This record gives sequence, C-alpha cells and structure tokens, in this order.
Amino acid sequence: MKPKIVRTIAQLRREIAEYRSARTAGGGTVGFVPTMGYLHEGHASLLRRSAAENGLTVLSIFVNPIQFGAGEDLDKYPRDEERDIRIAGESGTDLVFLPTVDEMYAGRRVTTVTVSEVTDGLCGASRPGHFDGVATVVMKLFNIVQPDRAYFGLKDAQQVAVIERMTQDLNVPVEIVPCPIVREKDGLALSSRNVYLNPQEREQALALSRALSKVEPWIAEGCNASELTAKLRQEIALSALADIDYAEVVTYPDLAAPEGSLPLRQMRETFLVALAVRFGRTRLIDNRLLNLTEAGADLCFAK
Amino acid sequence: MKPKIVRTIAQLRREIAEYRSARTAGGGTVGFVPTMGYLHEGHASLLRRSAAENGLTVLSIFVNPIQFGAGEDLDKYPRDEERDIRIAGESGTDLVFLPTVDEMYAGRRVTTVTVSEVTDGLCGASRPGHFDGVATVVMKLFNIVQPDRAYFGLKDAQQVAVIERMTQDLNVPVEIVPCPIVREKDGLALSSRNVYLNPQEREQALALSRALSKVEPWIAEGCNASELTAKLRQEIALSALADIDYAEVVTYPDLAAPEGSLPLRQMRETFLVALAVRFGRTRLIDNRLLNLTEAGADLCFAK
Repeated sequence: MKPKIVRTIAQLRREIAEYRSARTAGGGTVGFVPTMGYLHEGHASLLRRSAAENGLTVLSIFVNPIQFGAGEDLDKYPRDEERDIRIAGESGTDLVFLPTVDEMYAGRRVTTVTVSEVTDGLCGASRPGHFDGVATVVMKLFNIVQPDRAYFGLKDAQQVAVIERMTQDLNVPVEIVPCPIVREKDGLALSSRNVYLNPQEREQALALSRALSKVEPWIAEGCNASELTAKLRQEIALSALADIDYAEVVTYPDLAAPEGSLPLRQMRETFLVALAVRFGRTRLIDNRLLNLTEAGADLCFAK
Repeated sequence: MKPKIVRTIAQLRREIAEYRSARTAGGGTVGFVPTMGYLHEGHASLLRRSAAENGLTVLSIFVNPIQFGAGEDLDKYPRDEERDIRIAGESGTDLVFLPTVDEMYAGRRVTTVTVSEVTDGLCGASRPGHFDGVATVVMKLFNIVQPDRAYFGLKDAQQVAVIERMTQDLNVPVEIVPCPIVREKDGLALSSRNVYLNPQEREQALALSRALSKVEPWIAEGCNASELTAKLRQEIALSALADIDYAEVVTYPDLAAPEGSLPLRQMRETFLVALAVRFGRTRLIDNRLLNLTEAGADLCFAK
C-alpha cells in the first residue's frame, strides 16, 4: 500500500491526531522509525516490526545537518525519495514524514540536547557534536510524532545507548525498541553509506564482520579487553585498505571501559565490541553485543 | 476542594491518562503550573487561570537542585507543604505533584537541555548553569505531565523567554502562557524569597518597583538604553542596602542589547527592563515589559 506523504510538521500532527482520536479506546498505538532515508533492508526490518506492533507506523526521512561535522558527507549523503517511498509502503508504513531543513530548523535554533558520558568514546570521540545533533533532532521528532514506540537499529549501538539515556533522563513517554543488525549474505552490515565503496573497498570491508565473528571464540579462549582489541586490530589489518578509527570493548549500555584486566568471560557484564574503520573516504561501523551477565550461561548475542 | 496529592511519576501519569481517556471527545485540556512551592498570590493567579482555561489543572512543587549554583539558597529555600496544598485547593488545582529529588533524578543524569544566547545575559550571567537546570527540569516535567498549556509568571521574564525558545526549538507540543507579575500593595513583586528579608531590607526592597515605575516617564522624556540604565542605577542606589547585580534594557523575547543609541521611544521594539538587586544575602529580581512596537502607540505594558 502506498503510504501518505507528509512534508510539514503541522500536517503530520493533524494526521496523527486524527488517527489517535479515531482509534478505539485502548486501541492502536503509534510506532515511529526515524531515518536519514536511502532505505535498506535494515530500515525495512524496523518498519515491518513497527507495523506488526502498532496500529500506525510513521517513518521520518530527514538528513539532519546538525549531526554532520565539518568535512563529513552531508552534501553527498545518498538520497532516493521515490525508492524510499516504495520500500516504506512495502514494509507497512502508513505515514512518511519528509520535512525540509527549513521546516525542521525554522529560525535560529538555540536549544541543544546534550547527553554526556556515553558520548565520550567510540563515535563520539571522532565525531564531536554528532550526538548532540542526534539527541536534539530525535527529541524534536519525538515531540512532533509523540510515538508510543520508536525503533532503532543496533548497528548504531552507541546511538541507541544515547537515545535510551536521553529518554530515561528526560522522562520521554516513549518505549525505545532496539532491533538487530541486518547483514548482506557475506556478512557486511547494511548501511546507506555502503554505496560509497568501490568494488575493492567493498570486498575488504568484510574485515569488520569477519573480525566480529571471531569475538566469541576469542572470549572463550580467555581474552581480556586489551587482548581482544589487539586481536581485532590484527584481524582488520589483514585488509590493506582498512584504516582503523577505533576497535573497542565497552560495557553496554553505559559504554564504559571494562574494569581490570580479567578475561571477559569471567566478568558478568553485557559487552559491546565496536568497530569503526575507514576504507578510502568511507567510514564504516559495525559491532557485536554480547550478554555475559548470566552466570554459567553460554556466550550469546544479547537481544 | 482538596486537590489529590501525587508523589510518583508513575501515579501522576496514571491520573492524567485516566482524565484524558474519560474526557469527552475534543473536551477537557490539561493545564500545568510548575513551581518550587512556598506558594504566594502570584502562583495562585497562575493556578486560577489554568483552572479557568482547562479541565484539569496540575501543580508541581519541586525545589529543583540542578538549577541552584554553589553558595545559592538550595538548603534554606522556604517550604510549607501543608499551606501550599491549601492554596492549591483554593485556586482550583486538581492534582499536586510533589516528587522527591530521587524520584526526579533517579540514577545518574547525563542529559542536559541547554538554551544558548537568551541565557547569556541578565540572570544567566550571574547564575551559570541556572537555566540549563531550569530547561532540563521543565522538559522533564513537560514529558511527565504532557500538558496542553503551561503557565509561567513574568517576574521571571528571562525564564519565560528560555522556556518559550526551548518549546519552539524542540517542537514541544505545549502552549506557553506568560502571566503578569503580581505585587504587594506597596509595589514589591511577590517572591517566595521575600521571606528572607528583615524589616529594613523589606522597606528598601521597594527600590526595584519604584525605579521600574519611573521607566515609562523616562522613556517618554527620550532616554536611550544607557541613559535609562544609569537612571535606574541612581534610583536604586538611593536605598543604601541595595547591591545591584544588574539593571538592563534588552529586547524581548530575544534578550539582546538594543542596537544603537536612539531614544527607546523611537525604536519599534518590545523591551524588557530588568533588575536584580541584593539586599543582604537575598537577591531579588523584578522587571517591566514595554511594548513600543506599534507606531504612534502610547507607551504601554506588554501583555
């Protein structure tokens, strides 16, 4: 079914209010999937889940300028509105919100939502201001859509941690639903930025998922955090084009360095093993979330 | 009527959800008056207005620690829960939200809402971090109560400007209703902090309202901004105990310095004339909002 296209905040509010006032008592909820468009199967999986769990599914497509730093890929970020709308419809989306930058940032914005600590490391360290931009636009979108549930992909695990903390700290009345990473058959995590890769880079980009697939055996062998990151770096370095931004093990969702140097398998924690690697001018991220909290549990994927 | 007392976020949400689901279609709205308690006639005027304009009126009483700086009066801030509840009831309040600090800031808060520019001058200059604390707690309260309208007294005119900007920038779905300053018969602006004044300070504190009452004649005489602030300072200095923090003229709601040195009466602007003066250890604020935007209009109070 073709979703309804909405380009202004006022119209989106009217459409959602109409749905809410028409729904039967205790009935349909509103699910929300905020994206920057150029949708892939990862986005589609969020939309399908929202459509399965809610009476109304709202997708936003907005390449948010304030989360891009100087020299980043704001201007060349890929866009394909027509294809996005088709995928949205095939995935059960009811409303597609496609605002302009002016619609979202009319006048001079002086308000910023800042989440500290969980933004200090990983992508926060190499992209200063990025998560302020993410938190601010997501707070705006939450206030516009007022969803019951919002769906985020775990490929951006730090983003999920930031949004969860913001939602908790500011008492935002929304349930954050983190969803699994979707991968190509050969393991590459889906990303709108994968289109930037040339064939050679595309092949070498498998270094990320290949390294992550070895994390569980390495932990089973008794690696501690620094041993694990050394092994990750070695593995990624086998791809000659790989330029590592970071390869880290942190606790989740606090994103803190593991305390001490014990083997990770002896620590009852959920760990995020996170990578950011440049191939040419393209920066890719990938991660694996490992729940080691249950005593005696097998090593297993969290969530 | 005695209002219902609510001490947890979960219960407040339940009470408000119950009201909203029971209201007739298109019916009753929710009005919200956030305060730090020790209610006076200024607060009561906000509550009465909310009760007149909404089906449900929610009052919050929370002495918000994160808006107090080091050395400020957090520990001695006056409290009288019983009297507050009585005044709330007499003023048409339905629900009084009285959370503890732990209820509002459970766990470690890492999220801050920052409003820049309008917080640079006036109280923002002498109370660093104050408006971050205000914006953050008001965003939290808005997310908890989800009011249709929120009522703020214009004695804290900069606070009103900050909340209006935050609401606009973050697309918060609430109407901000600024309400006039309420004064004692002799002119002193009502404030919970007036109880700190000893009899001599209380008498000399009239310097603020006395100086402000002369603003219109001074503007009519052709004063520009710097001449006006000089006259304000002279007038206040007649009270020997007065220690001026600031006496300023700024545009409203941008709180910017007026451009150029023209007589104010020739500039088509809304001006805020704002004072902060210490008497002993008590810091008092007062202001006058002047709408000079209409060509040929008489000088008149805005709003």
